[in-house]
Amino acid sequence: MTKPVWIRHASQLATLAGGSSSPVVGAKMNELSIIEDGSIWLEDGVIQRVGTDEDLALHYRDRTHEAQIIDASGKLVTPGLIDPHTHLVHAGSRQNEFNMRLNGATYMEIMNNGGGIHSTTAATRAATHEELFAQSKQRLDQFLLHGVTTVEAKSGYGLTLEDELKQLEVAKQLNEAHPIDIVSTFMGAHAVPREYKENPDAFVDMVIEEMIPEVARRKLAVFNDVFCERGVFTPEQSRRILEAGVRHGLLPKIHADEIEPYEGAELAASVGAVSADHLLRASDKGIEQMAEAGVIAVLLPGTAFFLMAESANGRKMIDRGVAVAISTDCNPGSSPTVSLPLIMNLGCLKMGMTPAEVLTAATINAAHAIRCAHEVGSLEVGKKADVTIFDVPDFMTLQYRYGINHVNTVIKNGTIVVAEGRLA
Amino acid sequence: MTKPVWIRHASQLATLAGGSSSPVVGAKMNELSIIEDGSIWLEDGVIQRVGTDEDLALHYRDRTHEAQIIDASGKLVTPGLIDPHTHLVHAGSRQNEFNMRLNGATYMEIMNNGGGIHSTTAATRAATHEELFAQSKQRLDQFLLHGVTTVEAKSGYGLTLEDELKQLEVAKQLNEAHPIDIVSTFMGAHAVPREYKENPDAFVDMVIEEMIPEVARRKLAVFNDVFCERGVFTPEQSRRILEAGVRHGLLPKIHADEIEPYEGAELAASVGAVSADHLLRASDKGIEQMAEAGVIAVLLPGTAFFLMAESANGRKMIDRGVAVAISTDCNPGSSPTVSLPLIMNLGCLKMGMTPAEVLTAATINAAHAIRCAHEVGSLEVGKKADVTIFDVPDFMTLQYRYGINHVNTVIKNGTIVVAEGRLA
Ligand SMILES: [Zn+2]
Ligand SMILES: [Zn+2]
Repeated sequence: MTKPVWIRHASQLATLAGGSSSPVVGAKMNELSIIEDGSIWLEDGVIQRVGTDEDLALHYRDRTHEAQIIDASGKLVTPGLIDPHTHLVHAGSRQNEFNMRLNGATYMEIMNNGGGIHSTTAATRAATHEELFAQSKQRLDQFLLHGVTTVEAKSGYGLTLEDELKQLEVAKQLNEAHPIDIVSTFMGAHAVPREYKENPDAFVDMVIEEMIPEVARRKLAVFNDVFCERGVFTPEQSRRILEAGVRHGLLPKIHADEIEPYEGAELAASVGAVSADHLLRASDKGIEQMAEAGVIAVLLPGTAFFLMAESANGRKMIDRGVAVAISTDCNPGSSPTVSLPLIMNLGCLKMGMTPAEVLTAATINAAHAIRCAHEVGSLEVGKKADVTIFDVPDFMTLQYRYGINHVNTVIKNGTIVVAEGRLA
Repeated sequence: MTKPVWIRHASQLATLAGGSSSPVVGAKMNELSIIEDGSIWLEDGVIQRVGTDEDLALHYRDRTHEAQIIDASGKLVTPGLIDPHTHLVHAGSRQNEFNMRLNGATYMEIMNNGGGIHSTTAATRAATHEELFAQSKQRLDQFLLHGVTTVEAKSGYGLTLEDELKQLEVAKQLNEAHPIDIVSTFMGAHAVPREYKENPDAFVDMVIEEMIPEVARRKLAVFNDVFCERGVFTPEQSRRILEAGVRHGLLPKIHADEIEPYEGAELAASVGAVSADHLLRASDKGIEQMAEAGVIAVLLPGTAFFLMAESANGRKMIDRGVAVAISTDCNPGSSPTVSLPLIMNLGCLKMGMTPAEVLTAATINAAHAIRCAHEVGSLEVGKKADVTIFDVPDFMTLQYRYGINHVNTVIKNGTIVVAEGRLA
């Protein structure tokens, strides 16, 4: 048995309580349910009690000596951060391509130099299970150091049945081997592989007829995602793929309206997607339909930042009643980062969200976006004991002192996994 | 005597050699003088030899056992980073003001709530020498953790003779007490204090007649800076202040063309300023004159980022032959960060600079901007043993894996001050 962990005297304990049954929308996103001089008791991997330090000191007065005490004086305590959109499992690194781009190379020059998504597909196909595991585990360690305790992870760099299963199996194995919880998404429809360039519909058929049934049969994913974008998959192809997933019990997600308006938000609402992601060019009508249908917007301002594009309009979506979550989009092509704290800064500075809203977006709403808000995303009794402690006095300073990783301590399932900013 | 430190087998050792006599301009900014399998011997606080590991292994074959060896396999080794523009010494924190701004408050509402530069002036005036020292030392520790070994520090939150001297004395004391070297700038003309609101020229007279002579007499600053901006100090007032500084041996610097085009770049060229800083709205003519006069552009993309403005056009300035340096502008109002690594990311993603150019800008050109390129800013024999080791394999990855503090080790004056990302 591990000792109980008792976090005491938090300058602010942002519980995010009250939003577990449905995603947080509107003005409620700007509320964090903060307890000052806050205290939380973690035991058996679960949150046992949350309140003021005075309350917990009284309640546990006979058990004080049993606990490992963390003094959070002057610090901010939040739920463990949740990243609801990553391409965690992949091989290779594309810094050369980035360097070429900044040195003025054209898209075609980069492609001819072996750049682009196909280079990651080639590297991921070539990698062994063990290599993929090792590279992805390093990224998970880095996520943990940035305060993240749960991530979604997509396949989509295999693009053959065998290689998609390999990615998903690595994700499953990582989920078991690493403190971070991983929620898997099948994304065979991430790109049309070169070998299907002349006949993309045949690839769509294969995704629907071979990949989805096998992924579902092996229970390797919770979600089914598709890159709906001009030149990738059309709204019609996307709908077929998402509906096929639903028939096999895979919940729909969609990469929508990233580069061009393509009615991706509308499609998300129409198929009842759990989330629509990116949405830089989503139409007003699409945003309205998402709000009505309860589709969560997973916004990825790091991707816009790295591609030097305008961010999605998070402010407008919140004001129109869409539940907003945010994410790194961690991937080797358009967002090679694990820093969800920086993504939160970008949420404020590039999407007009408030410091409170970005914290809601990276905790309870991120949990809803991957359908695990019943067990993580807020500090409430009975939920998993996933907690992040930041070395700042309040939630505002977390955004104000931008570009710095303020994570001091991370607790996962009641166990201290990061202490003083280092892996424990 | 401290042991020699021998850094071996760097994946890339970016020496930045060859630029010590004058600032690096044009295509040369994109060259880093990289040694692969690089090696460097540090002893008596000075760089003794730089080369391939094979070369150093041969040269020091009889002294190998004397040295503390750092294995830099798979890592990038660079000169210690240099931040040439900070408002390091100040009291107070303005996260509330930031939060109000993101919640839609107007400038006047923030001011009426005690926000703005005057709140920092009030806090700095009220702070004791010891309080200022303690708060600023914390920031220096954070700078060190982000790979920075030299910073410039400005006064300008006192705005009375006594309080300006207090800031500069704290900077002097920090320079002695902390591993980071501090180069001081007097900036009495940072704002017109409230008490001179109706008669700004009287304040300018006081800066010229009382403050500058006393700062120079006490040898408390190397530079003299002024905020030349509509509503702050006019170009005429700025010129008077800078010329008065020159008469007392203080080298001119200028906050120029940040909010509006105001011929600040032209003024910088005309008075022979060492640097002109900000330059978001500098005119083409001003840029041309800066290139001709050899004025260094110190660009502050974090400030634009935090104020949600367009960045200065670093790409254009480099292409027109201006030597560019970059900096955090660390200050509590418009850039509350110490993360020079993120500023480098912003240099790439917001100013169109290349990964090599931002490294030049944060090392040898930053050294020139504070007139210490003879002793820091590159890894060359005889220079100070200031070295930063990043946990990335090459200079491109430092920018590619954005938003992450990759600093692993920092060596200052030949002593290891950061190890494994923590203060040693
Ligand atoms: Zn994605
Ligand atoms: Zn400044």
